[in-house]
Amino acid sequence: MPEIDIVLVSPLYEGNVGFTARVMKNFGFHRLVLIDPCTLGEEAAARAAHAQDVLREAELCTIEDVFARSNIVIATTGTVSKSVCHSMRMPFYSPRELRERVQDAGGRISILFGRENWGLNNEEVRRSDMICTIPTADEYPILNLSHAVGVVCCELSNLPLPRYALASPTDMSYLYRHIDRYLDAIHHPAFKRENTMILIRRILGRTNLTVREASTLHGLLRRSEWHIDPALLDRDKNLLQGSGNEEEPE
Amino acid sequence: MPEIDIVLVSPLYEGNVGFTARVMKNFGFHRLVLIDPCTLGEEAAARAAHAQDVLREAELCTIEDVFARSNIVIATTGTVSKSVCHSMRMPFYSPRELRERVQDAGGRISILFGRENWGLNNEEVRRSDMICTIPTADEYPILNLSHAVGVVCCELSNLPLPRYALASPTDMSYLYRHIDRYLDAIHHPAFKRENTMILIRRILGRTNLTVREASTLHGLLRRSEWHIDPALLDRDKNLLQGSGNEEEPE
Repeated sequence: MPEIDIVLVSPLYEGNVGFTARVMKNFGFHRLVLIDPCTLGEEAAARAAHAQDVLREAELCTIEDVFARSNIVIATTGTVSKSVCHSMRMPFYSPRELRERVQDAGGRISILFGRENWGLNNEEVRRSDMICTIPTADEYPILNLSHAVGVVCCELSNLPLPRYALASPTDMSYLYRHIDRYLDAIHHPAFKRENTMILIRRILGRTNLTVREASTLHGLLRRSEWHIDPALLDRDKNLLQGSGNEEEPE
Repeated sequence: MPEIDIVLVSPLYEGNVGFTARVMKNFGFHRLVLIDPCTLGEEAAARAAHAQDVLREAELCTIEDVFARSNIVIATTGTVSKSVCHSMRMPFYSPRELRERVQDAGGRISILFGRENWGLNNEEVRRSDMICTIPTADEYPILNLSHAVGVVCCELSNLPLPRYALASPTDMSYLYRHIDRYLDAIHHPAFKRENTMILIRRILGRTNLTVREASTLHGLLRRSEWHIDPALLDRDKNLLQGSGNEEEPE
């Protein structure tokens, strides 16, 4: 994803500018551009919190500058009801569709966000290359400026969450075999076995167990087995000796 | 999608509560639950804007009430760095993954959002059924409360945008035939034709033309044809008589 300029066109309230700087940085964006903004004072700084750098380095320029230097200019607009679908304001893309369209784009991309009371004017929309619309509820479609920026930045950033290991098919098959063996240990009747195992697969199958969770379930089964037949404790102690891999966390 | 309770646990700033009410309503959510909130006064009302109803009907209750009555309780947490991945705080789902997991769920679903300075405490996370984490940038992962609610609500609402008609494969094939005919009219050389048509397909093929846009391009081609050969104007007039369907929108 190329670095993107977030352009606020004539923002009226400094609090919104501060909040915008903050939510941009939350999602990894740094280039704030301000066109004809309100005076920025203490409230902007307070709302920017730990994004003072974004606020301080915000660039003041004109809408002409933005159009002249950007390879793609994207106008954001509120949800358009069918009756007012004018060709100038369509086709529009959701933030997610926008991501698909710009993620491989080169050059400079600027996203325009309009005035709090009025949005972008027709001229600004007309000159833009693409329209982005955040889907909202009909009963109250007007987002706060910083919320609109937040939703767009969140979608465009597409940041990954840290990964955790999911149990592999092999891990799951070991677990099911262990459960089956455990059902033997508690004399679960043979004629019920198949249905019970299916039911257990249905339950665990929709949980997407992590490796750790699967390991913990093994541990609980083993501990139960030891209580049912103390001889198994010695067997397992020998098996586990030196491996230390499968222990029962907490 | 079932109706979902948005639960703010001990919010500290009334402005955030107001903003939360607003962004909830923007995305079609109405059930705000407040646990041990700060005093709500003018600032909350101002920030709620046209979501006074959500704010006024917010329910005051205890965390015990929430756990007792909810079929699924979802805790929201900040991005967890690998070093502190504790089993209590994982596996975690992004808002989008969460949507897939709860969209067909029945019963009552509550989503907990923690204190501005502290988040949810371990006990609140431990008792929850699922963990939702919004992916954020490492350099500043702390979202404003209302921005976090906004991103989660936007994703869970999955509201549709109004639809507009895209040009069908048949529409596109008419358009390409018209372009090909037009290239004849301007004596485009035969030996270049195939490559030029491929290039035009590549350009238009990535635009996802709307019906209206395709119609406008037809209109422009026709108008050019009339200027090249005035006899075509009379031909087209006869063809279009009574149909009036394909005119050239501005």
